[in-house]
Amino acid sequence: MCGIVGIVGKPAREIILSGLKNLEYRGYDSAGIYLNDLAGHEYLTKAVGRIANLEEKLTPDEQGLVGIGHTRWATHGKPTVDNAHPQFDETNRFYLVHNGVIENYRELKDKYLAGVKFKSDTDTEVIVQLISKVARDEKLDAFTAFKKVLKEVRGSYAFLLIDNTEPDHIFIAKNKSPMMLGLGDGFNIIASDALSVLDQTKKFVDLQDGDVADVTKDSYKIETIDGEAVERTPHVLDIDPNAASKGTYEFYMLKEIDEQPGVMRKLSQDYLDVNGEPVLDQKIVDAVSEADRLYIYAAGTSYNAGLVGKEFFEKLTGIPTEVGLASEVGYHFPMLSKKPFFIFLTQSGETADSRVVLKEANKRGIPSLTLTNVQGSTLSREADYTILLEAGPEIAVASTKAYTAQLAVQVILAKAVGEKLGVKAAKDFPLKKQLALAAEGMQQIVDGKAKFDELASDYLIKSRNAFYIGRGIDYAVSLEGALKLKEVSYIQTEGFAAAELKHGTISLIEKGTPVIALINDPVTAELTRGNIREVESRGAHVISIVSHDLAQAGDTVVLPKIDYLMSAFLTVVPAQLLAYFASKNKGLDVDKPRNLAKSVTVE
Amino acid sequence: MCGIVGIVGKPAREIILSGLKNLEYRGYDSAGIYLNDLAGHEYLTKAVGRIANLEEKLTPDEQGLVGIGHTRWATHGKPTVDNAHPQFDETNRFYLVHNGVIENYRELKDKYLAGVKFKSDTDTEVIVQLISKVARDEKLDAFTAFKKVLKEVRGSYAFLLIDNTEPDHIFIAKNKSPMMLGLGDGFNIIASDALSVLDQTKKFVDLQDGDVADVTKDSYKIETIDGEAVERTPHVLDIDPNAASKGTYEFYMLKEIDEQPGVMRKLSQDYLDVNGEPVLDQKIVDAVSEADRLYIYAAGTSYNAGLVGKEFFEKLTGIPTEVGLASEVGYHFPMLSKKPFFIFLTQSGETADSRVVLKEANKRGIPSLTLTNVQGSTLSREADYTILLEAGPEIAVASTKAYTAQLAVQVILAKAVGEKLGVKAAKDFPLKKQLALAAEGMQQIVDGKAKFDELASDYLIKSRNAFYIGRGIDYAVSLEGALKLKEVSYIQTEGFAAAELKHGTISLIEKGTPVIALINDPVTAELTRGNIREVESRGAHVISIVSHDLAQAGDTVVLPKIDYLMSAFLTVVPAQLLAYFASKNKGLDVDKPRNLAKSVTVE
Repeated sequence: MCGIVGIVGKPAREIILSGLKNLEYRGYDSAGIYLNDLAGHEYLTKAVGRIANLEEKLTPDEQGLVGIGHTRWATHGKPTVDNAHPQFDETNRFYLVHNGVIENYRELKDKYLAGVKFKSDTDTEVIVQLISKVARDEKLDAFTAFKKVLKEVRGSYAFLLIDNTEPDHIFIAKNKSPMMLGLGDGFNIIASDALSVLDQTKKFVDLQDGDVADVTKDSYKIETIDGEAVERTPHVLDIDPNAASKGTYEFYMLKEIDEQPGVMRKLSQDYLDVNGEPVLDQKIVDAVSEADRLYIYAAGTSYNAGLVGKEFFEKLTGIPTEVGLASEVGYHFPMLSKKPFFIFLTQSGETADSRVVLKEANKRGIPSLTLTNVQGSTLSREADYTILLEAGPEIAVASTKAYTAQLAVQVILAKAVGEKLGVKAAKDFPLKKQLALAAEGMQQIVDGKAKFDELASDYLIKSRNAFYIGRGIDYAVSLEGALKLKEVSYIQTEGFAAAELKHGTISLIEKGTPVIALINDPVTAELTRGNIREVESRGAHVISIVSHDLAQAGDTVVLPKIDYLMSAFLTVVPAQLLAYFASKNKGLDVDKPRNLAKSVTVE
Repeated sequence: MCGIVGIVGKPAREIILSGLKNLEYRGYDSAGIYLNDLAGHEYLTKAVGRIANLEEKLTPDEQGLVGIGHTRWATHGKPTVDNAHPQFDETNRFYLVHNGVIENYRELKDKYLAGVKFKSDTDTEVIVQLISKVARDEKLDAFTAFKKVLKEVRGSYAFLLIDNTEPDHIFIAKNKSPMMLGLGDGFNIIASDALSVLDQTKKFVDLQDGDVADVTKDSYKIETIDGEAVERTPHVLDIDPNAASKGTYEFYMLKEIDEQPGVMRKLSQDYLDVNGEPVLDQKIVDAVSEADRLYIYAAGTSYNAGLVGKEFFEKLTGIPTEVGLASEVGYHFPMLSKKPFFIFLTQSGETADSRVVLKEANKRGIPSLTLTNVQGSTLSREADYTILLEAGPEIAVASTKAYTAQLAVQVILAKAVGEKLGVKAAKDFPLKKQLALAAEGMQQIVDGKAKFDELASDYLIKSRNAFYIGRGIDYAVSLEGALKLKEVSYIQTEGFAAAELKHGTISLIEKGTPVIALINDPVTAELTRGNIREVESRGAHVISIVSHDLAQAGDTVVLPKIDYLMSAFLTVVPAQLLAYFASKNKGLDVDKPRNLAKSVTVE
């Protein structure tokens, strides 16, 4: 994934460091910075771990008027100083930062760079060495050599390149990985994510796949790899850079869990009118209504939200709905119905796995909709339609409010489509009231968060493993609960259809193994209670999270009242809180679990 | 699940114990036996754990001419002597063994048995106490009281009841749980599974749901709960009772892994003619060909086999295929196409979760096919069609050869249907040759099993967790590999679509975490290698299992040559062997992992 910031025309160091800190959600295995003062001095510094480590290593004299910086999520080679970016060539002339994965780096290395000694295990070093070799052997300037090399490169990349023989230029190339060019007065700035440099400018050019650019402090030129000029219109981003402040919270994750009732109210206000009727772009509702089958594609937490979405769409629109892992269908397309409609769920709008599917869908002319939290993101631009999640910036790596916003937007869309199709279940569904119940219920649960602090300490933090079980919608939430708990607490947790545990996995139940059982479905509640008794018979400690109407004496958590179809809105909040407190009480960095990155822009 | 044996008219003890040992695959938490010598002496003995423990507790004088025995897989209450069966009433008159789950036992207890003191936590004791109370209060004989109580019972059961005031009778009731009545000369025997008592008789009556029976040594009478007489025709089972011997193997699991090449050859011989054309009941091929969508339902390992089957059916027949967890659709039926066809995968043919789906399918008139290893099993009888897996008895709880037999039968059926529909991919597919390659390749892998013994010892047995990753068919096999490893070795293992790991779960990767990567799909091989580098960067120890054509220097295991579509046949064998050796080298009981039962007849 990796985050990149580059600037030319202004004292560069603090701007790059501040931008990289904002980008740490894209990975934080290691970081590095190259600075050049345009007076013959250059500085390269790299460090393992957070940006703070890099900052500590920098001496006061390391300054520059041009520079590039990088925070890394390792794809090739371990997180070491040698593998950190910028990478450079053996003549110490070119400096390159890279986000993405070069698929044919081995071939390129074997074919062209037999005699070159490599310092790192990265695919990136192969590219910078090759640029250097081509420039040297063929006596080409940096931009020409760069484009020549790119013609042979297969894979995903956002590159920033500096040539110290013409250090007042930054060269850019983009394919599949995001890269924005920010325009300033007497300077220009380049970043993986416009949000990270909003304090410098709000005017941006969105670079597109296949673009290369040559940027100086007061000019920029965009071309194709073949050297043809390209026009890209700048636009102004209207976002409050302070919306993402942590305030008095120790961690963003808890802040974002707490914000969920507010997000529900905002979505209800923005997407429903006073009568509770959905207010969505009519073209979107029409397009979905014409489909004979819906295909939801996503990854990770968004995939789990899609599983709940399937219930909304099938119950309220009567259109059969399939949910798939984007990475699994990207290269093996599903057998489609006659009138398919694709829905992409992606918080960042940059998920590479989903983008592969969308590109193929576009090629085939399949209509598509992206539900995303980021206006102007790649999947938003490339799909036919977009509905924004309006969850506000989500900084913690583990997604919480974006998940519940995905649920809300899906159920609103399902109601709109169902009403257009004349489906009784949609007409009868009191969505505004139910969303209000969701907001109130979430508020009750977060107000009682101390209980989950205790449960996490008493039953989770000392366990090597845990299970979530449930049936129907509770099964979908079990998958999300398990993902949340394991990604932030490192307790290996699996979500299971309640009945499936006994087909093998029940052998892992020992005395005290935590099993979190979700019961909201009246039809299968008794069966799930049977599954609870099975694991209790084998010594499990069961934490039962049960709907208001199905609660019995002895249940651990009784949820506020809501319709079964909407139950995921409430059930997931205890799961989020258990994950949060398990991580916090183990003394872990809740917001930035090891190995992870928030926006996953590699496949 | 539980296993039951009862006999009347012959010295009962050794016959019951031998039958129960054969039934240990149905659960082995605890066991018990009731014996009555018809001369005023009765004996009740129960023990926690295996039948061997029960045997040790029996004294030489405990003998009988009638008796009932039980081996238990706990559903209510811990495995203790008090919770073991037979359960008995407070007057010590009735003795009851039970397989199944009574859903309304609490209601019955609260309503009728307020004053009764209970010795166990079981649902079963409620029933035996209630029979006793009804017989006493209303002065009814045992059979009449039994039927009266059954009218109020909701749930699944196979019951055997003895009343010591008329001890030469055994009373039976059956609903959803299997029960066979074996007919002998001067004796009758009743068992959960005919195979367990084949040394006593081969003549059986299959009892059906709703049947009750009154059995003496030379008579039996079958009725409905309402007392109407029922006719059931006996049939003769033609099975070799010695086929299941372990021979020189330490564990059945390894024997069954080793038998797979033979099973492949047998299936090829029995279901393909000399020209390689499928030889299946034409009615089955016709029925499947008429479907516009196939729905495969299963649980556990069979579900994993269904995921591979989807690939066979879609590639070779062009019919879209959905795979679902039986337990998830049983009570929330899927949105069906116009011409659905249901396929059930169940090794035992008794899986309760699948049976719920089949009953609903029958009610709706949806045509259905069961692929099972057990002729005459419940799901075989109740579906429109059956194809037998012909894998021979599988005794180890972890399924191996039944899984590969399920793959084989599915691909044979897919080819037959595809050919009938004129699909080119089916006509061109050289199935006989590919199945021969599967058999040869499996043989090569099992011949080299020492390698997996080493890998398991070096990398798996000390790890708390492990991962399988793969894309496409490799993803389906990853799920099966993970299930196999965790169920017998208790190492928490998850199977992942290779690209999904980075959407959260990669935070669990630490130094030395074993990640087993499967690479057989040429289209996505390079992407999966990218995912390997991601986990290696974070310290994982990767065991790569790679197809002949995609192998690179450094791969751990290179598989023999086979078509990608058939790759699961070979990829799964290393996974089975790794699981086997991980369990064996940890000193565990490979064939009988804790908490499990082979045939899962509760929901």
